[in-house]
Amino acid sequence: MKIGFIGLGAMGHPMAKRLLKAGHALVVYNRTAAKADDLVAQGAVVGATPAAVAHDVDIVFSMLLDDAATQDATFGPNGIAAGLPPHAVHVCCSTISLAQARRLRDGHAERGQTYVSASVLGRPPAAEAGELFVMAAGQADVLDRLEPALQCFGPKIFRVGEDPVQANLVKLSLNFMIYSTIEQMAEVFALNEKAGTDPHTIFEIMTGSFYNAPVHKNYGKLMVDQEYDHPGAPVTLGLKDVGMFMNAGGDYGVPLPYASVVRDRLLSAISAGDAERDFVVIQERVRQESGLKQDSKK
Amino acid sequence: MKIGFIGLGAMGHPMAKRLLKAGHALVVYNRTAAKADDLVAQGAVVGATPAAVAHDVDIVFSMLLDDAATQDATFGPNGIAAGLPPHAVHVCCSTISLAQARRLRDGHAERGQTYVSASVLGRPPAAEAGELFVMAAGQADVLDRLEPALQCFGPKIFRVGEDPVQANLVKLSLNFMIYSTIEQMAEVFALNEKAGTDPHTIFEIMTGSFYNAPVHKNYGKLMVDQEYDHPGAPVTLGLKDVGMFMNAGGDYGVPLPYASVVRDRLLSAISAGDAERDFVVIQERVRQESGLKQDSKK
Amino acid sequence: MKIGFIGLGAMGHPMAKRLLKAGHALVVYNRTAAKADDLVAQGAVVGATPAAVAHDVDIVFSMLLDDAATQDATFGPNGIAAGLPPHAVHVCCSTISLAQARRLRDGHAERGQTYVSASVLGRPPAAEAGELFVMAAGQADVLDRLEPALQCFGPKIFRVGEDPVQANLVKLSLNFMIYSTIEQMAEVFALNEKAGTDPHTIFEIMTGSFYNAPVHKNYGKLMVDQEYDHPGAPVTLGLKDVGMFMNAGGDYGVPLPYASVVRDRLLSAISAGDAERDFVVIQERVRQESGLKQDSKK
Amino acid sequence: MKIGFIGLGAMGHPMAKRLLKAGHALVVYNRTAAKADDLVAQGAVVGATPAAVAHDVDIVFSMLLDDAATQDATFGPNGIAAGLPPHAVHVCCSTISLAQARRLRDGHAERGQTYVSASVLGRPPAAEAGELFVMAAGQADVLDRLEPALQCFGPKIFRVGEDPVQANLVKLSLNFMIYSTIEQMAEVFALNEKAGTDPHTIFEIMTGSFYNAPVHKNYGKLMVDQEYDHPGAPVTLGLKDVGMFMNAGGDYGVPLPYASVVRDRLLSAISAGDAERDFVVIQERVRQESGLKQDSKK
Repeated sequence: MKIGFIGLGAMGHPMAKRLLKAGHALVVYNRTAAKADDLVAQGAVVGATPAAVAHDVDIVFSMLLDDAATQDATFGPNGIAAGLPPHAVHVCCSTISLAQARRLRDGHAERGQTYVSASVLGRPPAAEAGELFVMAAGQADVLDRLEPALQCFGPKIFRVGEDPVQANLVKLSLNFMIYSTIEQMAEVFALNEKAGTDPHTIFEIMTGSFYNAPVHKNYGKLMVDQEYDHPGAPVTLGLKDVGMFMNAGGDYGVPLPYASVVRDRLLSAISAGDAERDFVVIQERVRQESGLKQDSKK
Repeated sequence: MKIGFIGLGAMGHPMAKRLLKAGHALVVYNRTAAKADDLVAQGAVVGATPAAVAHDVDIVFSMLLDDAATQDATFGPNGIAAGLPPHAVHVCCSTISLAQARRLRDGHAERGQTYVSASVLGRPPAAEAGELFVMAAGQADVLDRLEPALQCFGPKIFRVGEDPVQANLVKLSLNFMIYSTIEQMAEVFALNEKAGTDPHTIFEIMTGSFYNAPVHKNYGKLMVDQEYDHPGAPVTLGLKDVGMFMNAGGDYGVPLPYASVVRDRLLSAISAGDAERDFVVIQERVRQESGLKQDSKK
Repeated sequence: MKIGFIGLGAMGHPMAKRLLKAGHALVVYNRTAAKADDLVAQGAVVGATPAAVAHDVDIVFSMLLDDAATQDATFGPNGIAAGLPPHAVHVCCSTISLAQARRLRDGHAERGQTYVSASVLGRPPAAEAGELFVMAAGQADVLDRLEPALQCFGPKIFRVGEDPVQANLVKLSLNFMIYSTIEQMAEVFALNEKAGTDPHTIFEIMTGSFYNAPVHKNYGKLMVDQEYDHPGAPVTLGLKDVGMFMNAGGDYGVPLPYASVVRDRLLSAISAGDAERDFVVIQERVRQESGLKQDSKK
Repeated sequence: MKIGFIGLGAMGHPMAKRLLKAGHALVVYNRTAAKADDLVAQGAVVGATPAAVAHDVDIVFSMLLDDAATQDATFGPNGIAAGLPPHAVHVCCSTISLAQARRLRDGHAERGQTYVSASVLGRPPAAEAGELFVMAAGQADVLDRLEPALQCFGPKIFRVGEDPVQANLVKLSLNFMIYSTIEQMAEVFALNEKAGTDPHTIFEIMTGSFYNAPVHKNYGKLMVDQEYDHPGAPVTLGLKDVGMFMNAGGDYGVPLPYASVVRDRLLSAISAGDAERDFVVIQERVRQESGLKQDSKK
């Protein structure tokens, strides 16, 4: 299969590389062209515009930063939609709002084009290793065709439904569960610390008993080590994520009290000057409210 | 070692049996004496009162329903404290409030007696199989002495600290995390269902990716199957648990917004007539608020 | 003074009429021209477009439904900005988001035009009677010039600050306080009703003691009478209002837990089929959660 | 009428004085006897014990600090119940929990004694001036008999119902509304301050428009002046109050999300070292979360 890839950022670049390694002919596009250099050295071809890439392939993936970048690369001048032929399919992997997901679905439908959503879960090292989780939604026969390409990203491909927007909501939901688990652990760590118990002990008990999922292990570890400055995702990204999740609640009339609590933590972290630190820093808000000593690394 | 066991309920009975099977000499006491019959058939001896049991052993475990039962069996007439000799130790395994945990600690101390807390995590089948998690707190040398007995309950014994109360708070914390994870999943299930996605699909994605701890698998399964009437723990027990956790927050000045949300769900479930159903039924409150069809099994 | 007025809806029409009655020369514009008929009969002149109105006057008021209508009437083709002369001023009275408020402020500034915000508090009968509260923000000398016109709307004109956006936030804040007071009273009414006390009795005690503001009297009365279908503002408007308030919290990093609770009530009311009923109907969500009998008028 | 009064604290003393001034024969009791000196100088008689007071009068009021003091003075040795004759009535004015209110009701009923609850709203200066609000609950004919005595406390006597406990819940509810209004105003003040608007301006607009109840005026003023150390009620009292209100919610299965938010503020204030300052200091928690400058008077 001939595959196009738009967006070679921290996630897109290793995903594109996985496709190339699997033997697919790859045409890439990135606003900053230099990001494609090593892929070209391995056999990829650079397209002049998203439209040019789309025109030339069977599948075009997009993995861009946000709603605006996705909208621009899809329906802007020389965007994917301007080039996508009838037999090809646009697969959006970005984490975007449901409103933007609907714009993609409807905009391609108006043009008689084929579109599916394939959200991915995992951080860059997982993308590198082909260990992302893929949540795909769209027409079943289209997803069938995509299967060999999607398997380059990770062994587990979950099919969510026929409406592409469903996959976007699952992705927002899974992200919310990270923040929510952090809040839950933060309340437990703070209370036990006030009673004299080292959070590391609580962490060992959690992860040694019923709370041993990666979400507990990975984020719990960062929390008990007060490790807020490793190269992770910042508070501002968390706020965007939770905001999109809450907007989805607004669309469907679903109250989300836990999401509201998390949003308030993120806002408070920003007011405390932690906007650009890893979002696990929201734990410090729980600590402050509890009268516990604040993180000294800042 | 000669071991006493007070309280042969759903958890206490299999725990006592594990001690017996491991070859310990066992003296038991239960308000309803018949509960001891099969243990006696296997070699256990019945004590006339908690005091009589305590008088006769090296270690006396208590595993009782709540604060009141524990207080009565310990400091009431013919209670454990009335019989406990200087060389022996009282080990409380019950889930009790911090206020009661302090009464046990201080009451024994006043009498010059030795006391530790060893909270256990797990349901009756795990007790039967010797697969409970044990969280112990007290003097280190006393815990050393208890090690062989505690290992009968489960392979993992976590030491929390020197103050017995710390173990009780850890237990309340772990219970809170169950309710809290249910709320978190309930919000996600309801929102995705409103967007057209079957909660079973979300459950598979969760447990197939980063949310694969027993707490997700066990409770998530009950939730997506709307299985609210299996022989589990009722809403009223959940309310007691979360109330004790919030009271601990009150003791230490720790705000617990997630616990408050869960408490409100439990209260609402009671008002909806679900007081005696399994506490996962709080999911129905999230469903109702979201305008989703209500459980029809009631 | 020669005054223009754009938007003759439920609020705008009586406000324009007050200006006319006070002897000001009035030029009006409304998308549905017929709404201006009675004003014309009383001496007003109809402008062909917002630009034409603005071109001809000293002050142009706009009182439109929402962000989109305001943006269109201001910066759209033949909008206010296309006609506003250097000596004149655009006064926006609409309840709009802070984002839109900034667009107005900045868009006019870029064009070297004068702009202030004058949000109004009160329902249509108060507009009719000239008893609105006016919250104005902008350059002090411009507000001085506007004073005689603003006094037609109500006797109390509060000056909030130099930045027009400040007045918009005050308006969103005061609206939030209505919803928030409803929630607070709803919790009290429901709890006391469950204890056997008629909410009407509670209402009398509240309004006869420390809780005797119009917000308690007016909304409390609707609540205890379960009067959800009078010609007031619908749940959907409440959701828009609270959403704009929460977005302001997002802009400034201010956690707003009470606003989050109210948002969830409004969403739940929509899911219960009450989207178009008066927003006091959110009380029914509190009643339902509490197991109280539901409103039968629906 | 011959009237007894037990408890001559900050509220009880001026209330007793009002009865005396109105010409009633008064018998008083206070643990610290000296508190009665000036009343004796004005004609009151001191009883040796609560039982002795109760034995001698037609009505015995009690106005004590809390549950424990009330229980002790009523059912303890030489308590009111030990002396109360069949024709007399015990009127409890204290702010107590519903559990304690039930103990009073049921304890007196078991003894064939007459008991009503008459909670009062207002601070000491209002008690001095006879301007308290009285919420009374009990048998109607008993309340009729009490009317002349209750009118000494304030002109407005609200009858809540036949069950004395109802009056206690109304009192807890009205107290909750104070804390809740503080939270609501705190969110508004903080957000507007971050947008550049002086809270004093917001306060003027509130109290000059729809938010002009004493609760807005009195507490709002303290808030914008950051006046946290005047001789008011401390955070710890607020926590007790809100705790009793939430326990009432627990009794009746009523979720109270606003009360939970307030409880968390109070806990956080205690952790910040403000336990003994006036409870309006919870505003500082909102300010801190918002990144606003903290109160410097501490």
